[in-house]
Amino acid sequence: MSRMLGSSAIAAIIGLLLLPAGAVFAGSQAAAITTAAQKNFTEYLDLLSLPNVAAEPSDIERNVAFLEKSFQKRSFKTHRLDNPAGRPMLLAELSSAKASVPTILFYAHFDGQPIVKEQWAQQDPFTPVVKQRNAQGAWQEVPRERLTAKPLDPELRVFARSASDDKAPIVMLLTAIDVLQAQRKTPVINVKVLLDSEEEMGSPSLGETVKANRELFNADALIVLDGPVHGSGKPTLVFGNRGITQATLTVFGPTAPLHSGHFGNYVPNPALRLATLLASMKDDDGRVLVEGYYDGINLTDADRRILKATGDDEAALLKRAGIARAERVGATYQEALQYPSLNVRGMASASVGAKAANIVPSEAIAEIDIRTTPETDGRRLFELLKRHIEKQGYHLVDAAPTTEERASYDKLAKFELGSVEAAARVPMDAPVGRWAMTALKSSTAQTPKTDPVRIRMMGGTVPTDVLVDALGLPFLLVPTVNADNNQHTFDENMRMGNFVTGTETVYSLLVTKYQR
Amino acid sequence: MSRMLGSSAIAAIIGLLLLPAGAVFAGSQAAAITTAAQKNFTEYLDLLSLPNVAAEPSDIERNVAFLEKSFQKRSFKTHRLDNPAGRPMLLAELSSAKASVPTILFYAHFDGQPIVKEQWAQQDPFTPVVKQRNAQGAWQEVPRERLTAKPLDPELRVFARSASDDKAPIVMLLTAIDVLQAQRKTPVINVKVLLDSEEEMGSPSLGETVKANRELFNADALIVLDGPVHGSGKPTLVFGNRGITQATLTVFGPTAPLHSGHFGNYVPNPALRLATLLASMKDDDGRVLVEGYYDGINLTDADRRILKATGDDEAALLKRAGIARAERVGATYQEALQYPSLNVRGMASASVGAKAANIVPSEAIAEIDIRTTPETDGRRLFELLKRHIEKQGYHLVDAAPTTEERASYDKLAKFELGSVEAAARVPMDAPVGRWAMTALKSSTAQTPKTDPVRIRMMGGTVPTDVLVDALGLPFLLVPTVNADNNQHTFDENMRMGNFVTGTETVYSLLVTKYQR
Repeated sequence: MSRMLGSSAIAAIIGLLLLPAGAVFAGSQAAAITTAAQKNFTEYLDLLSLPNVAAEPSDIERNVAFLEKSFQKRSFKTHRLDNPAGRPMLLAELSSAKASVPTILFYAHFDGQPIVKEQWAQQDPFTPVVKQRNAQGAWQEVPRERLTAKPLDPELRVFARSASDDKAPIVMLLTAIDVLQAQRKTPVINVKVLLDSEEEMGSPSLGETVKANRELFNADALIVLDGPVHGSGKPTLVFGNRGITQATLTVFGPTAPLHSGHFGNYVPNPALRLATLLASMKDDDGRVLVEGYYDGINLTDADRRILKATGDDEAALLKRAGIARAERVGATYQEALQYPSLNVRGMASASVGAKAANIVPSEAIAEIDIRTTPETDGRRLFELLKRHIEKQGYHLVDAAPTTEERASYDKLAKFELGSVEAAARVPMDAPVGRWAMTALKSSTAQTPKTDPVRIRMMGGTVPTDVLVDALGLPFLLVPTVNADNNQHTFDENMRMGNFVTGTETVYSLLVTKYQR
Repeated sequence: MSRMLGSSAIAAIIGLLLLPAGAVFAGSQAAAITTAAQKNFTEYLDLLSLPNVAAEPSDIERNVAFLEKSFQKRSFKTHRLDNPAGRPMLLAELSSAKASVPTILFYAHFDGQPIVKEQWAQQDPFTPVVKQRNAQGAWQEVPRERLTAKPLDPELRVFARSASDDKAPIVMLLTAIDVLQAQRKTPVINVKVLLDSEEEMGSPSLGETVKANRELFNADALIVLDGPVHGSGKPTLVFGNRGITQATLTVFGPTAPLHSGHFGNYVPNPALRLATLLASMKDDDGRVLVEGYYDGINLTDADRRILKATGDDEAALLKRAGIARAERVGATYQEALQYPSLNVRGMASASVGAKAANIVPSEAIAEIDIRTTPETDGRRLFELLKRHIEKQGYHLVDAAPTTEERASYDKLAKFELGSVEAAARVPMDAPVGRWAMTALKSSTAQTPKTDPVRIRMMGGTVPTDVLVDALGLPFLLVPTVNADNNQHTFDENMRMGNFVTGTETVYSLLVTKYQR
């Protein structure tokens, strides 16, 4: 899952919090899955031992070679999909005997976030380490053999880059196939698996690669195997994700920084002007005041019921964030995510701390990100903000203001559009949703059995838009890894209990008939 | 003049702009001063060749040794004033024959701003270079001998660190003494000269040094020889300077940066909250909205006439700053400086530019400086701001908020008081002011003769408060160097025409009787 924080920040979470208190696995099906998972842990650790930062194409090449063998030995046909950067993607295909059977395209990625080796508690993020919590709650290394001891301790974790994001789901899928083959069964759907090699870079060649090989991607639906399950630990289906639009707002002051003694009270301060401009955009509850910003969003009572049903522990959410009160954009956490956001992701004017000088700064900058929804296109919101800024008396320029512009306009600013990735969402009653619900309800690994958590639209952004645009397929996100996997940071980990329940989730999809 | 900008910024200016179009010197007095100045240019260049950044005490030592000789050979008694850092100051004294004659204590400093050698257009900021403007207006090096060619070209400039700030006034004073001695005259006042060695560091030991040697400093008035004359180029008297109070405002968000997708619209953004808080402090015209901020300032019509009389070219001031409109705190530039300011000298939250991440930042910081007046004490204004922040719903903490504070208060901030230097001002009709006016009016170097510009209170801060506190003396700032001297930057320079008029200004003080 890309567009996440660097190592200094926390991992992405859909709902977060409290993991189930040690899942218990019931029945022979669960036992078969656990056995197959334990058998595949060696393959999993071997895959994690291959460095996979996309900046190094030769590393990507080694991962592809490994994965080709893994899929081929399970009877998949594989196709390397080359791209100009020399970071091939892989398409693996396991066709049903019957040509008329619907096809599901699974998406996962095998590249990982860049690493800062020194930050890791282990010698090498590409030498996986098995850990368990000691009595004091600290992580303690245990021998690798513990992974294959019977019964499997679900609380064991593997620490390594991509342990969760996103190599685990790939091995879960392979394991689900192994279980089927051991049962002398085949999937009831045609299975295609697209393994992206550049997801953590923003999948720069994904759209082109898919378009250039369009015939290979014929399918009925797309399933994205990425991201953590809801914080409750329950099986989770995600029906959409917000998009992101970035923008940079610069307010201009004097041509060069000026002495704050000789010019303070005379030359307007751009930091204060930027502050006033930003303050005009939102109210005290976090609602955007820009006209038309929320137009098009009409949550029904049915939508609200679905949003409420996720049962997020909001008190715990506040505690985790370290805040006393949430904004009031939505009545609940999930509802807030159904609206576009307006976030100041960075702000700067001159210097703070020891480098601060007694000056009137020459400019002030705010970096903005807008998380968009399918109803609120990012480019449209950008234009609304632009108009709002102009309404506050600003003359907008495209470049550093000229002498003439400086002489003519009291308030000068620049507002630039950055990257835009669209939101995507499928209706909860779409065939793909009904199919996945049926499948996950049949899942046996989780005890007591519960209905899956349905997330109408998660807050973050995944590159579904590229695939959805290129393929025009209905899609679902099916997360499998633990919510506290710390993806993208220096303590990324995978909980073994989730490895088993995630495999069960994938297995359930493979054995459930898809109704077009 | 300390507390100025670093090399990246422009120099301090009291009024700035248009220098007189090549001052013409009339009469034998002016000729005598020009001759003496030209004779002393070698000594001036030798002094500029001594590195003088106070961080290096051995350099300070070499400057002191040089200055001891310069003053001693003009019959001054000198006293080294040691301080703990090993950067001695110098007190030089030239007593009149008559014990009852009033004593004037002149203050100047011989240390200079730190340098970044690569930024200078010349090989070494401590190897002075003589330049003139070519037909295209660019600075062009000319032989040093041009300084002593007759007649002196007033537009020649010497480029070097401390060429203007503040070694020039020291040599002007020595030159004025030389003129007197050539005329077989003596000053009609007792002359004491205090040469500070640490002014650009904020004069950390000045107060203690003066107090420890109190008897050496008996005087009737203090004259600070520092800073540039009014932009009109006219002789200038400055009756006061604003003080400065620094403060740091930190608004707290989540404990750690959070993913802006998963938390945007839910976790309040500290950058936006800081923006709203700052926006609440000032109106669109730059007036502070905090209750009681301007209390105590009552400009009379007489004050306003004096402020208007400086005749600043405000259109040129706006052009120089690169802005279309000034703030409206005062009706004129000079009037604006009579009020305390509230300036955001730096602002930061997370990162901007290439390092910006899609996060809700964990905190946002504004560095604030308040330029104060004698009526508006910095500590009192700080308390008013504090109360204002609390009125906006903030709970103020002294350190990073605890888990309990985070859980209890929606709005958390820290507001810290930084350094405080008081403003100082003497009434325009004080004896020291009347004496200096009489002196400067008698000055002959400037043609046509004009009344000196009287600045009620300049916007910047000079460490007069330390001296005034320690000595309890009435004081005046008597600037002499050109307004475009670019002090503190990599093109600091001294205009030779101002060297002559500045010497004339100092000479006029030495020959004018002081009425207690």
